[in-house]
Amino acid sequence: MTPVTYGIAIFPSKHIQDVANSYRMRYDPRYSLIPPHITLKERFQATEDEIKQVEDACQKLADEMDPFDIEINRVSSFSPITHTVYLKIEENDDLTYLSNKMHEEPFPQEREHKFVPHITISQELSEDEHSDVYGSLRLSEFDLKDTVDRFQLLYQLDDGAWTVHETFKFGKE
Amino acid sequence: MTPVTYGIAIFPSKHIQDVANSYRMRYDPRYSLIPPHITLKERFQATEDEIKQVEDACQKLADEMDPFDIEINRVSSFSPITHTVYLKIEENDDLTYLSNKMHEEPFPQEREHKFVPHITISQELSEDEHSDVYGSLRLSEFDLKDTVDRFQLLYQLDDGAWTVHETFKFGKE
Repeated sequence: MTPVTYGIAIFPSKHIQDVANSYRMRYDPRYSLIPPHITLKERFQATEDEIKQVEDACQKLADEMDPFDIEINRVSSFSPITHTVYLKIEENDDLTYLSNKMHEEPFPQEREHKFVPHITISQELSEDEHSDVYGSLRLSEFDLKDTVDRFQLLYQLDDGAWTVHETFKFGKE
Repeated sequence: MTPVTYGIAIFPSKHIQDVANSYRMRYDPRYSLIPPHITLKERFQATEDEIKQVEDACQKLADEMDPFDIEINRVSSFSPITHTVYLKIEENDDLTYLSNKMHEEPFPQEREHKFVPHITISQELSEDEHSDVYGSLRLSEFDLKDTVDRFQLLYQLDDGAWTVHETFKFGKE
């Protein structure tokens, strides 16, 4: 069996996803591969045995969490590292805790970037296009709030699209 | 609050999804809105209170199920009703049971079509295009098997794409 590519993400409320998509449909060529999301753990490869351990660890992690609030007030950009514009999630200890835990055993521990919780709304544009988009959005004020009560384990299909494998709801049932 | 549009579906194994997508990317204009799936319950609207009852009912239904096998040997078409070509799921009592239960209280009970378990690979083509696609595939033999151990409740975003709300795994944990 070839290892499968997995990722872990939070889908915010439908309203926040609709807002994000109003930009993504214009500015994000990967728009159709996955709904708007907050990545907790970037893509990683796992065999069938490895992913079972990850699933158990996700369940334990979710069991001990309580729902928590997130807030979005503005956009930001990863420029000059990448031309990615995103809805910035205001500093949030619970998100950081979740993401950190997902980089400890039994999860693969490699980490490419510091964790910056965000919802991408524009990426892979040219430098000029990125400047236009970011320039037009950087002073916009947003007032988006949501309560996070679950995260999802996804895997990637051959065409690049993501399918949800499992939902982990917070709190022991 | 406006009611949200929900649906219930099974995502088959990655391999079956990859096979389905190899056709969908060419023949299905709704390709990018949702990964390949077996619909158990077509779109329905629900308020926040109503969907809570549906979620509870889904959980109960999943608790009492055991994983079951499905098999795909060939394609079929809903023509002349619609120009939809699909991977036909061989007759399966568990799928029928699940879908029937999802049309009893507390689920909305309207049903537009008889339940024919399938994975759409081509739709919304012209009559000629449909004839071409179906003609080229109708004699193909497939040998796809999978074990179903979960179903998912999804909601639809304003742009038509679907996000998974929850995964219901079979068997009491």
